[in-house]
Amino acid sequence: MKKLIKGLREFKSSYFSANEELFEQLSHGQKPRVLFITCSDSRIDPNLITQAGLGELFVIRNAGNIIPPFGATNGGEGATIEYAVQALDIQQIIICGHSHCGAMKGLMKLDSLRVEMPLVHDWLKYAEATRRLVKDNYSNYEGEELLEIIIAENVLTQIENLRTYPVIHSKLHQKQLSIYAWIYQIETGEVLTYDSQKHAYVLLQNQLPTSEIDETLFNPPLGKTEQDTIQSSPELLISPHTGFPMTVLSPQQMERIYRGSKTN
Amino acid sequence: MKKLIKGLREFKSSYFSANEELFEQLSHGQKPRVLFITCSDSRIDPNLITQAGLGELFVIRNAGNIIPPFGATNGGEGATIEYAVQALDIQQIIICGHSHCGAMKGLMKLDSLRVEMPLVHDWLKYAEATRRLVKDNYSNYEGEELLEIIIAENVLTQIENLRTYPVIHSKLHQKQLSIYAWIYQIETGEVLTYDSQKHAYVLLQNQLPTSEIDETLFNPPLGKTEQDTIQSSPELLISPHTGFPMTVLSPQQMERIYRGSKTN
Amino acid sequence: MKKLIKGLREFKSSYFSANEELFEQLSHGQKPRVLFITCSDSRIDPNLITQAGLGELFVIRNAGNIIPPFGATNGGEGATIEYAVQALDIQQIIICGHSHCGAMKGLMKLDSLRVEMPLVHDWLKYAEATRRLVKDNYSNYEGEELLEIIIAENVLTQIENLRTYPVIHSKLHQKQLSIYAWIYQIETGEVLTYDSQKHAYVLLQNQLPTSEIDETLFNPPLGKTEQDTIQSSPELLISPHTGFPMTVLSPQQMERIYRGSKTN
Amino acid sequence: MKKLIKGLREFKSSYFSANEELFEQLSHGQKPRVLFITCSDSRIDPNLITQAGLGELFVIRNAGNIIPPFGATNGGEGATIEYAVQALDIQQIIICGHSHCGAMKGLMKLDSLRVEMPLVHDWLKYAEATRRLVKDNYSNYEGEELLEIIIAENVLTQIENLRTYPVIHSKLHQKQLSIYAWIYQIETGEVLTYDSQKHAYVLLQNQLPTSEIDETLFNPPLGKTEQDTIQSSPELLISPHTGFPMTVLSPQQMERIYRGSKTN
Repeated sequence: MKKLIKGLREFKSSYFSANEELFEQLSHGQKPRVLFITCSDSRIDPNLITQAGLGELFVIRNAGNIIPPFGATNGGEGATIEYAVQALDIQQIIICGHSHCGAMKGLMKLDSLRVEMPLVHDWLKYAEATRRLVKDNYSNYEGEELLEIIIAENVLTQIENLRTYPVIHSKLHQKQLSIYAWIYQIETGEVLTYDSQKHAYVLLQNQLPTSEIDETLFNPPLGKTEQDTIQSSPELLISPHTGFPMTVLSPQQMERIYRGSKTN
Repeated sequence: MKKLIKGLREFKSSYFSANEELFEQLSHGQKPRVLFITCSDSRIDPNLITQAGLGELFVIRNAGNIIPPFGATNGGEGATIEYAVQALDIQQIIICGHSHCGAMKGLMKLDSLRVEMPLVHDWLKYAEATRRLVKDNYSNYEGEELLEIIIAENVLTQIENLRTYPVIHSKLHQKQLSIYAWIYQIETGEVLTYDSQKHAYVLLQNQLPTSEIDETLFNPPLGKTEQDTIQSSPELLISPHTGFPMTVLSPQQMERIYRGSKTN
Repeated sequence: MKKLIKGLREFKSSYFSANEELFEQLSHGQKPRVLFITCSDSRIDPNLITQAGLGELFVIRNAGNIIPPFGATNGGEGATIEYAVQALDIQQIIICGHSHCGAMKGLMKLDSLRVEMPLVHDWLKYAEATRRLVKDNYSNYEGEELLEIIIAENVLTQIENLRTYPVIHSKLHQKQLSIYAWIYQIETGEVLTYDSQKHAYVLLQNQLPTSEIDETLFNPPLGKTEQDTIQSSPELLISPHTGFPMTVLSPQQMERIYRGSKTN
Repeated sequence: MKKLIKGLREFKSSYFSANEELFEQLSHGQKPRVLFITCSDSRIDPNLITQAGLGELFVIRNAGNIIPPFGATNGGEGATIEYAVQALDIQQIIICGHSHCGAMKGLMKLDSLRVEMPLVHDWLKYAEATRRLVKDNYSNYEGEELLEIIIAENVLTQIENLRTYPVIHSKLHQKQLSIYAWIYQIETGEVLTYDSQKHAYVLLQNQLPTSEIDETLFNPPLGKTEQDTIQSSPELLISPHTGFPMTVLSPQQMERIYRGSKTN
């Protein structure tokens, strides 16, 4: 705690002092543009990895970056999502998973949690769709590779859950909401994002602007194609494998996609 | 989103590059020492205000930094708390409220939320003890002052809720857990902490080490009194008002306590 | 049933007839001063053991004298507590456990209840904090001794749960509520009460007035210390063991504390 | 509290001392024959009014002597009922309402409870069947008379709820369970019991043996009629009105039935 108190002093005397105007402004209200949903993992700092300034990200954090389906429970996730969209008029939501996720490791050995961590066990029910999909479709994988797949598939599961919320369902219909699936790689500092056209995760840093997961992607937008919206850098498209649906990724493909290109 | 993607690049090329060893280390595991529970508000960045490095804070964030009592719901709060204590062996928990909290504003006009934000309305049930206490005991206050009181009392309510969790109940008994109540002041960059001996919030930056809310405070540790453990700076004790129970704070007292000293 | 009907007649012809004025008075209203929460066990009669007259005790009884945390369920406990405090303005609450409690025995073998007594199994969730604490901290105990510890720790757990109720939270703040932890010993007719200063259960019959578990105990009242308020009889302090935290009781200590002094 | 502590001493020194053998016996186990479900009201003492000895009545008490239907909630009622029937093999259940019941008064003005006593409001949901029946069928009644009807009908509603429990449903089928509806009259010390043949409440003290509410009553028992099982005293049958279904009780009938015969 001493360390934290020293930190508070430092913050006050350096960062705060250097940005007094910003804080004065912030005291009058917040107008974040993004709802950032990520894991509680201590190795993640949303503002740091996105270099977002204070006031830009409205943040939900829990073990496993999980969102229960609407109506399933009365936890903070649903209420905070509703507040973000309804009260703050946020139009961009990022669900961000990460490598080496402890909750996802727990999902791989669910039964063993029942006695020692019953709350975690019950909470992972909202990731059961992930566990089931992976069990049925990736039965050949194990260990580290399996964990990476679970992490990746889980973000997509959570987006499915997110879509069941009334405010989300309504805003998607109005095309006033974009949802993104990210995976933050602790070891490389890179972020992968799910490209729904390619059905694969791709390096986000290489994209301008981002590929989005929103309603329009399922019904090609009038007057423009997905090609127009994604200007992917050539290095990304080198591998023909990226076009393969995730269910048939070979180990080499995963190497490429999940660990990032070492030439970057 | 373009902005965020640029940010990801900057992060990768500057911060990440400058700390590659740290990230290599982090990829092998996390060992955070503190569970930091705070609001989703975009103006709060836990790592920034505490100057904590990556890997130090395990973070839960939701609207209103609320913790449902054990058994009340199957949300992420309980599971993440259990994971933090049971799997990560964390022994320090900070519940951090903040000035200008939107969720607490919502608590002041609860009925009006029922139609437009029903999830927020239902979520605030877990702050009902706060609302009730304030309604019964602070009926003379209103507006900004009332909001500050609600924010402050709510952190204490959430600590009551936190204590109903089996892992928390057990660790407190073993004196292996300390719980802190903080209030982050956006406009001053200062943090107040609840001093259970004084029954009041006091400036944290002035304390070494921190006053804690844990079992030991209720029974002064053998051989030393609370006086020994808190080295409060004189400025803190200037005002005799800090000793008053919160129920009899005058506006001037609140100015002093909640807004921090402007000479800092 | 014949027996009960005869009993009704006896009651009417002797007790009722001898106290007609009292019953006339009672028919106009009740003004109990104490909310007595105890187990459904047939060997307990609250009015008998306290020699309280009709109209003095407002009583909640269920298996295990358990109080679910606020919001956990819509059972009779929360509503009756609210009615007691809000409508009847009761300012003293006693949670009274007892020796040889069947529900606590059930807690010791929780899994075995799942098939034959699923409701009891689920109900005991609100004693999970007790089970957890005892499992983590009293692993060397078993059998009768373990049961006594569970019974004693459970009353304290239930007080934690009780404190999450809005009306309780508010009244404690106003210092208009005192909460007591009792254990009724069927075999000796004695009652132990938890002394939060000593961190141990002590014989209640020897105390005037009672030690209380309420807010004031955490902050010694101005002008007097806890010593002033408890006039413990010497026999009580004979054993230096009563000062030990419960975690280090030896079998002999427990004999002394839990079974009461045989010389009484 | 001083009074209660004195009471504990008195109990120990007189009642307990005079019955040491009984208490020694009780410490080995309990074998209650009746599950007594009644209101938390301080003017009721089950053991006193039935003159039952310790160890005879297993008691549930909450505001309004309400039993939620099976599956509606995870409160103490269901678990305690299950324990009584399954673990203690109890075969007689009495649900006992009483005159001047505060919870039933609350039921008469339900909406007004929503703000000040929300838990009581929600709890009374399990008496909604009572409120509805009375609203639809007794619209001409008000004040004291209406309250008496609500109290009487509510006990019958709670028996309906009780019957939804698996263990109850099963034991009734095996004819191993009898359920009784009682109303305790505070002002006269008398108890009325519901006679399902007469469809009316009658004075219990006059009956040998009791009329029961159990399955057999709905299907006349083979070989014997209800007449054989109830030996009602003549005074009871004086009024031809007692044969009327409760829905058409005249004020005089209620006078007779609810207030008891003043000649007793």
